[in-house]
This record gives sequence, structure tokens and C-alpha cells, in this order.
Amino acid sequence: MGVYPKAIKNIIDDFERLPGIGPKSATRLAFYLINFPKDAIKRFADDLINLGGVKICKECFGVAENDTCDICSNISRNHKVICVVERSIDLLAIENIGEFKGIYHVLGGVVNPLNHVGPEDLKIQELIDRLSKGIEEIIIATNPTMEGEATALYIKKKIDESKLNIKISRIGSGLPIGADLEYADLATLSRALSGRKQYE
Amino acid sequence: MGVYPKAIKNIIDDFERLPGIGPKSATRLAFYLINFPKDAIKRFADDLINLGGVKICKECFGVAENDTCDICSNISRNHKVICVVERSIDLLAIENIGEFKGIYHVLGGVVNPLNHVGPEDLKIQELIDRLSKGIEEIIIATNPTMEGEATALYIKKKIDESKLNIKISRIGSGLPIGADLEYADLATLSRALSGRKQYE
Repeated sequence: MGVYPKAIKNIIDDFERLPGIGPKSATRLAFYLINFPKDAIKRFADDLINLGGVKICKECFGVAENDTCDICSNISRNHKVICVVERSIDLLAIENIGEFKGIYHVLGGVVNPLNHVGPEDLKIQELIDRLSKGIEEIIIATNPTMEGEATALYIKKKIDESKLNIKISRIGSGLPIGADLEYADLATLSRALSGRKQYE
Repeated sequence: MGVYPKAIKNIIDDFERLPGIGPKSATRLAFYLINFPKDAIKRFADDLINLGGVKICKECFGVAENDTCDICSNISRNHKVICVVERSIDLLAIENIGEFKGIYHVLGGVVNPLNHVGPEDLKIQELIDRLSKGIEEIIIATNPTMEGEATALYIKKKIDESKLNIKISRIGSGLPIGADLEYADLATLSRALSGRKQYE
């Protein structure tokens, strides 16, 4: 184009590198920021730099402020139940419900041969290593996608091989609350049927 | 929540302040940035700070790298035709077509009594002042909204009062290309009818 001042062009490029932000949104955001208060811009820039200070918890591999995250270092939580998730953001989604009182284990992704991600690229061995520390139950909460399911099955197999007496479960899947059977896809509907629960 | 490390919480807050980015997108962007290369993050932060260096062209009031923007200082453009737009981003939208060879005038908004924006808050007097410099034609390209139309009419009146012999036109409005009459709103359809063009 050549008509954008360089400072604006640069910030548009930065925004465009982010997921879900195309050229139009990036331009809109850049122009919005021009009229932003100077101190807010400064804070934004500082916050970006400070992101580099985010640590990975040495217990669960989730994001943390210190070497161990707030959840792993919280003795009032149930350290006998581990919920296994793909990414830190999934951990926070579950944490937002406010119902799970156990601890977590973040795999760092899922097995995905197409993207050259094998089990050895994930924190699976680290999970197995944690199991001998008095763990009684594992809830595998990888996403109900093909890769998530395969990863869940792989983890289940590994735990079975460890011969530890641990209860293993998979997070429930089926129709989301508020959904309409008419519009549900076949895979979800089939899973909802096979995963039916009897009234007690 | 309390489970997000502060560095992440801050960047989520920064993103949430931007238009069209809600809590979910902000969180996703923040977590995406954690895995961003350090130098790209640094560049992003620097670019934000550099935005403060964007200037406003003293001729057209659009964004500029220097005191006068590339368009106003380009002698190969037609300095007798001015296209009046609301904001710099609108200028760039027109510039993107690559067909308009005149110069621009950025009003900095539209008359909007509900938001306490009057004609004196816009660069309307500055536009009138420019007219005596050999301007032959004015194209008023404010948005076809109620405020944009009112502003356009106000500008037309002001130019008429100046008694200068200047051709004034309003950017065309009607059905957008690819639209369907069936789904067009009444105002657009009515404008498309009254703005019909005879075949030559």
C-alpha cells in the first residue's frame, strides 16, 4: 500500500500474526490504539514484555508465577486426584467451574502424527512418574477430538501398564446443555446415546 | 479467579480493552502469546510504543509519518479535488481502491449531538479554509449513516455560504455489489431507487 505510516503498518503486522485476527481487524485495532491513552499503551507494551516472566509449574506444567503453581502448592486441595488436560487454558476452563478440588497435569498438547507430535513430546512420562505419589484417581480431560481421544487411550494404556491401582475416567461427552438433537452431528449424538446415564 | 498468573491476567485486561475482543478471545490471545518467540513479543511491544510517534498531517488531518502526509506532499496527485472522510481509516479504504487521484480531508468524526460532538469539534472550518486554495471539486464521503448524512449536509451548506464556485458531490449509496434485493433494508432500497442512473 505505502500510504500507512510505518508505525501503523508494523502494529497491523503484529496483530495479524495473532490467531483469529485478519487484515481488517488488525487495521481497526491499530487505528483504535492511535487514540489510546499514552499510559495505557505503555502498560500494554510492558505487559507484553512481562509475559516472558511466566513460568511453567514443575509439578503440573501449567502456567505459574513461581516454580510451583498456586494450585499445586495449595494443601487444601485434594492431591490424590489428578485431572489431565491438553493445555493451560483448558486447566483454567475447568478451574472456572469452581467444582474440581483436585490437582492438574498439563500435557502440553496431544498426540498428532500429522504435526509430528508423538507421546514423547508430551508430559506423559512425567504424569506416570507422578502416579506413584499416592494418586488414587485420574480424570482424563483431553478434548473429545480424534487426537484427544487417541491421547486419552494412550495414557490409559500407560497407566494400566504401570500396574498401579488407580481409578481412571474420561471426561463425559455428549450433547452440550441447551443443544437441539435436530442439529447435533452424528458423532456427538452417537456418543450421547452410548454415554446415557440411568436414573437412580 | 486468582488462578491466572498476574502477567497473563494483565495482558488479558489489555486485550479486553480493545474493540471486538471479549474475555474469551482476550484469554486465547494471551495464551497464544506465551508461546510466541521472544523477539516477536519485543517487536510488538516496541511497535506499540512507536505508535506514539504517528503524526497528524497539517494539511488533511490524516495519519502521517511527517508533518505532511505522503498524499498531501505528492505533487503528482490532483490537488484540486478533495475527498472528505470521517476518519483516517476511511481515507485508507478509499486509497485501497487505487482509483482516486485527488487529496483528502479527514474530519475526525461526525456531528453527533448524543455524544456531544458538534461541528466545531470537527475539522470543518479547516476544510472551508482550504477551499480558497484553488479547489474545484469536493466529494463528501462521510458514511451513509444518519450522523454522516447530517454532517455531509452541514458541510454542503457551509460551502454554499462561502460563495466559492466549487462542484460538490456526495459519495453514491444504494445496494452493495453482490447484494440481494430481497434482503435489502428499506432505507437502502429507497436510496438505490432514488439514486438510479440512466444508461447512456
